Amino acid sequence: MKKSIINARIITMDEKMTEYKKGFLTIEDDKIIKLGDMGSFQEEGETIEGKNGILMPGMINTHTHLGMLPFRSLGDDVKDRLRRFLFPLENKYMNEKLVYRGARYALCEMLLAGVTTVLDMYYFEKETAKAADDMHIRAILGETVADLKTCDCREPGKGFFYAEEFIKEWKNHKLITPCIAPHATNTNGEESLKRAKKISETYQVPITMHVAEMDYEMQYFKEAYSMSPIEFLNFIGCLDTSLIAAHCIYLSENDIALLKKQKVGVAHCIGSNTKSAKGVADVKAMLDAGIRVGLGTDGPTSGNTLDLLTQFKLFANFQKLKNQDRSIFPAHEIVALGTIQGAKVLHLDKQTGSLEVGKQADLVLVETDSVNMFPAFNPYSALVYSANAGNVDTVFVAGRCLVRHKELVGADLKSIRNDLVEAMEEMSESDIVNGSVFVGA
Amino acid sequence: MKKSIINARIITMDEKMTEYKKGFLTIEDDKIIKLGDMGSFQEEGETIEGKNGILMPGMINTHTHLGMLPFRSLGDDVKDRLRRFLFPLENKYMNEKLVYRGARYALCEMLLAGVTTVLDMYYFEKETAKAADDMHIRAILGETVADLKTCDCREPGKGFFYAEEFIKEWKNHKLITPCIAPHATNTNGEESLKRAKKISETYQVPITMHVAEMDYEMQYFKEAYSMSPIEFLNFIGCLDTSLIAAHCIYLSENDIALLKKQKVGVAHCIGSNTKSAKGVADVKAMLDAGIRVGLGTDGPTSGNTLDLLTQFKLFANFQKLKNQDRSIFPAHEIVALGTIQGAKVLHLDKQTGSLEVGKQADLVLVETDSVNMFPAFNPYSALVYSANAGNVDTVFVAGRCLVRHKELVGADLKSIRNDLVEAMEEMSESDIVNGSVFVGA
Repeated sequence: MKKSIINARIITMDEKMTEYKKGFLTIEDDKIIKLGDMGSFQEEGETIEGKNGILMPGMINTHTHLGMLPFRSLGDDVKDRLRRFLFPLENKYMNEKLVYRGARYALCEMLLAGVTTVLDMYYFEKETAKAADDMHIRAILGETVADLKTCDCREPGKGFFYAEEFIKEWKNHKLITPCIAPHATNTNGEESLKRAKKISETYQVPITMHVAEMDYEMQYFKEAYSMSPIEFLNFIGCLDTSLIAAHCIYLSENDIALLKKQKVGVAHCIGSNTKSAKGVADVKAMLDAGIRVGLGTDGPTSGNTLDLLTQFKLFANFQKLKNQDRSIFPAHEIVALGTIQGAKVLHLDKQTGSLEVGKQADLVLVETDSVNMFPAFNPYSALVYSANAGNVDTVFVAGRCLVRHKELVGADLKSIRNDLVEAMEEMSESDIVNGSVFVGA
Repeated sequence: MKKSIINARIITMDEKMTEYKKGFLTIEDDKIIKLGDMGSFQEEGETIEGKNGILMPGMINTHTHLGMLPFRSLGDDVKDRLRRFLFPLENKYMNEKLVYRGARYALCEMLLAGVTTVLDMYYFEKETAKAADDMHIRAILGETVADLKTCDCREPGKGFFYAEEFIKEWKNHKLITPCIAPHATNTNGEESLKRAKKISETYQVPITMHVAEMDYEMQYFKEAYSMSPIEFLNFIGCLDTSLIAAHCIYLSENDIALLKKQKVGVAHCIGSNTKSAKGVADVKAMLDAGIRVGLGTDGPTSGNTLDLLTQFKLFANFQKLKNQDRSIFPAHEIVALGTIQGAKVLHLDKQTGSLEVGKQADLVLVETDSVNMFPAFNPYSALVYSANAGNVDTVFVAGRCLVRHKELVGADLKSIRNDLVEAMEEMSESDIVNGSVFVGA
């Protein structure tokens, strides 16, 4: 059955940045089969009125931790939060049920915000995979392994066993790509990182981890190896195009050269990196070097919102200021980072990231009826500087309509939330709100 | 007739930061007459179900240019935009009708986003005053005067005549306070600035202008006077508590001391200042010195969104990064800047800015049903890091309900937009979209 979205302002984000001021796009099964000006539209199958909204590729979130949703709005403004608050909180409360229900809720939020592809790394990732399968989102999902006692692995190292099982189980799914996710360069030792790399090679799956994010991580590598984390990863043979490196805030010229040489993809998380006062990655230098860079929200406790539109605005303002140039990164380049460039980072650009015939029908209609979306002379400016997640009207993933008129289709947000609330009842008020789980001062 | 909002999570933003986890607030005529825990609520008059939303003071926007709404999304990413694009565009197209209809539309956007008090400065300000009166928003409005040919004053200097007439006409309005608004330190000479100050004194009205915003402004004062703009304003007797200084990005220690000594209020516009790559004002130093600071969106062409929630998030991330401290400006302090501190900047804190018995009923209910607003363990975190303008459910100004369930009450957004679209038809496509109005290279 064919479906066509008509009377929309289409920004394809293809290589020529083709636009149709009043256009249509036709889907058959999971693919885009036709698009163009309304003048050439011939009715066939179902039509969906676009009401002059902006029709764009589904947005691509290259880094998050969906399962952490139940901890959102806790301890946002405390120092050294990861070690002092989040690790202890996770170790005490995180469990399979909470990951599944938290991830499912977080995925509702992403879909409602126009995210159609997500890369996630967390514990109990098989639960996240179940949630992603339930919600019919496109995803790359990695079980997190670390040389630490974690919530799903009380014996350090045993996580690799779970991770391999997880990869085998999800290897041939249509929308889900399993991957392996060492936690970070400083929470995984050399042996552990090499073991993850080996798994990535054996199963031909991506590898993702936090890289060059923490000041103490940089300090550690300098003192222990006289290298940067990226130089170290290269030294031990873990730097190549299968790697999606999250953050990369602190980069030397040599780091950039290595990322380029080894064709690493970078997940840039501007909201999370600045809320935590870490820094602004030099995206201009990375792009100038030809490195693939996409945008990520980071987890709901780090970036808080799970939509790319928030990241667009933050990216624009932080990068313009950093480069002392209001003309750098014009709006259309920022939209590209959140769509086609993100797809390239995930090596999914053959399937998604732009609206082109033959590609998967992953697409988003952003309405322009709401008060904040007028005038929209420039649709990219409207998306970057004006839009918020609440403007997303309709979302398709692989040809299936998952959001229509700002509501989930075939899923009930209220009951998904109620399930999550029930799973959260085990969390004690004194630990979470009053912060008695805090470690140190 | 009394009205009560019940079952809301109330953050009063009063001096003790009083909160009610499940509270009520009762309005009679234009005032708050009672608030407290639901346990002490006695039904009387109309009740409005708060559905566990966050009830907060109406937000206060200390700097904008409402009439510029028709130019939104144009030329966002071009260098030296004000002089090369906006001034020529204004001179060619801006007129009374466009200001009235643009301001009316922009005010709809602010109300729908929970802004209940706004300070505006622009040309044809009497039109903006009519629009503000129509919309029943609380406002301080200043006719802009400059030593330039402007859209409402073809002979430089004549604007003072309009400005004085404007002040006389609106002096005793219940919600509207007229003021005088020299454009900036570098677009008004000494004589012009002193004349504005005189008008402010004669009519006992505030004075507002752009201060220490432009790199070329700083350069000019250094070369011409060996002073900063703030030192110059002090030198000519224009620095006192009647001044609301917008931006103040570039401040020396002496500037901060002068602002403190002369009790100047500052409108900090983080979104506009960073999108234009200008800088991040040192708000910590200003607050440490005891200077009153509020938040502003700047005009819809500068900051693009007209809501304070966007500013909250940008403020948090930029200030945390600037100060290299994720714990600085915890969320509740940011909400204070957008409410009670903003009221103090405008000398309106006796009337508005916090929820207290006897104050004007300017209030906002932010719903927590939308997907992005859960969990909201900490209501301030939810407002700063998660909320967007689309979460604002209900808004009262001076006891009158202007927004209910995210729709305007007693005003029709569609017809207000249609009126604006009609007034915009005079703008030529080649000038505005293709930018043929641009000056220089």
